[in-house]
Amino acid sequence: MPPRPNRAFFLTLEGIEGAGKSTAVAFIANWLEERGYPVEVTREPGGSPLGEALRPIFLNPDLAIAADSELLLLYAARREHLYEKILPALARGRVLLCDRFEDSTYAYQGGGRGVPLARIHALSAWAGIQRQPDLTFWLDISPDLGRQRTLSRHPDRVEREDSAFFHRARAVFAQRWQEEPARIIRIDAELPLDLVHGQIAQCLAEALGCG
Amino acid sequence: MPPRPNRAFFLTLEGIEGAGKSTAVAFIANWLEERGYPVEVTREPGGSPLGEALRPIFLNPDLAIAADSELLLLYAARREHLYEKILPALARGRVLLCDRFEDSTYAYQGGGRGVPLARIHALSAWAGIQRQPDLTFWLDISPDLGRQRTLSRHPDRVEREDSAFFHRARAVFAQRWQEEPARIIRIDAELPLDLVHGQIAQCLAEALGCG
Repeated sequence: MPPRPNRAFFLTLEGIEGAGKSTAVAFIANWLEERGYPVEVTREPGGSPLGEALRPIFLNPDLAIAADSELLLLYAARREHLYEKILPALARGRVLLCDRFEDSTYAYQGGGRGVPLARIHALSAWAGIQRQPDLTFWLDISPDLGRQRTLSRHPDRVEREDSAFFHRARAVFAQRWQEEPARIIRIDAELPLDLVHGQIAQCLAEALGCG
Repeated sequence: MPPRPNRAFFLTLEGIEGAGKSTAVAFIANWLEERGYPVEVTREPGGSPLGEALRPIFLNPDLAIAADSELLLLYAARREHLYEKILPALARGRVLLCDRFEDSTYAYQGGGRGVPLARIHALSAWAGIQRQPDLTFWLDISPDLGRQRTLSRHPDRVEREDSAFFHRARAVFAQRWQEEPARIIRIDAELPLDLVHGQIAQCLAEALGCG
């Protein structure tokens, strides 16, 4: 049995629809568990009891929500998630693996919906979202290929946005990657799955100092 | 048939549990309609499709929600309510009658839960809640009598708070009444119902300039 490293580590996955986040989350959780890391998997919107109650409302394709209201809703869920689940898990030495976090908000509500990034930043500060991930994998894929991969799904309130929305979102992911190269690792999610996961494993091994 | 005055007017009712807001809302709506005012009745949390979807989550007694997350949730609903329903109704010359609005947030989350009022003010500003009511009836009742009146209800997440919570909330209602005497009218809600409604009718007639 491998040693059980007790190391707080906050890891997030980001990317537009169809990038393969769900598959990567499962791969990473398994990879970490095989190496003895106590890992907790969570997601946004969601993660806390409040967040999970809000998630179906957030994704409901039949519900109109203005961009500013949507942001307040997202930060209600994120504040609860960070303070009631993520920070306590990190305090217990867990690896916290989260499907989407702040980067998605800047990409979708900022890039996609056009809310000024400074306005998002102000709300994030009010909500006390100071803890950023230690490492973020940005699974980058072209919006057209991403859409092709999700064609069989019934689109939720976000997925039904048009191609231009996801081009703008991708541009903000790219901008944040350029601004924070030490935290955000871009993975070419158009490559075959074994190469995508191989790159992720290599980066994880380096970041955690394990093989 | 009376003339149909076309006059935008934003009217709110405030007070702690058991003060008689629901009964007063019905009385006021009827009083206005009898005088030909086109009135829309709404409530918080709620009022918009998003707000009504959030209301059962907000009131769920089995759901833990931290004070800051609760505030973000309230302002998600209020932003949507104000911009998607209240302001459009006022623009159409309606009387908008709303059960709870900003004053309740300062009283409950500020007074009751102890969130600094300046912090609430900052979030309200971010959410763009600039339009305040033209007139607010504060139905004032002692927390003990209010609780007696609601004993038969199954308490929701807010109603189950203790007596001290409602004493603190009442103190903030009183503070806002003293600061904004032109907007907020205190009604002694411990008086018999016909006197309470008589006072409301008299104030309404003066405010709207009708008999």
